[in-house]
Amino acid sequence: MPTLPQPPYYTVIFPNQRTEAHDADYATMAADMVTLAKQQPGYLGIHSVRGDDGFGITCSYWQSEDAILEWKQNVDHLVAQRNGIEHWYSYYEVLVAKVERNYSGPTGR
Amino acid sequence: MPTLPQPPYYTVIFPNQRTEAHDADYATMAADMVTLAKQQPGYLGIHSVRGDDGFGITCSYWQSEDAILEWKQNVDHLVAQRNGIEHWYSYYEVLVAKVERNYSGPTGR
Repeated sequence: MPTLPQPPYYTVIFPNQRTEAHDADYATMAADMVTLAKQQPGYLGIHSVRGDDGFGITCSYWQSEDAILEWKQNVDHLVAQRNGIEHWYSYYEVLVAKVERNYSGPTGR
Repeated sequence: MPTLPQPPYYTVIFPNQRTEAHDADYATMAADMVTLAKQQPGYLGIHSVRGDDGFGITCSYWQSEDAILEWKQNVDHLVAQRNGIEHWYSYYEVLVAKVERNYSGPTGR
């Protein structure tokens, strides 16, 4: 699990529903997106989960909005090279939010 | 899927790892938490998913911080009545964040 700093910092929340198509392409793409994130200055960590029905949520954490914008440009480029996001997702939202407070649990920080 | 308003609004991000214990109690509790949220003024919607390994993320959405605080008081009371959150989760974080921007997908709003 990521060790997150004291707020404030930023998060990109990505709730999404996978289509059933393009599984091999998707796995490569998803791995590349995470690799890109980890290489990006300002990256703080990630939580990600997908259920059996193909619905998933990924929250990535960032020091600044600038870091998010740079990562987004890289991801947009990656997606454009690979036929567009509509092949992989039948639904998604991308929410950019500023984390203002946090409470940690038993094995949190 | 929830129909979210234009930002700004608030979200409570709850990444968590379930223990294997107390499954029946937990199911009741989780249902009660969602019911409480939906009854709360200022509730906008929820995204929630859990994977096979017991890791889950729930993002609930709220019009204001006051709405979150009222809901949190109700949830804290519920949890206190039922032996505490450590029975159900081996890890969690609760992040309160202000949604500032959003991008919607193919079947988003």
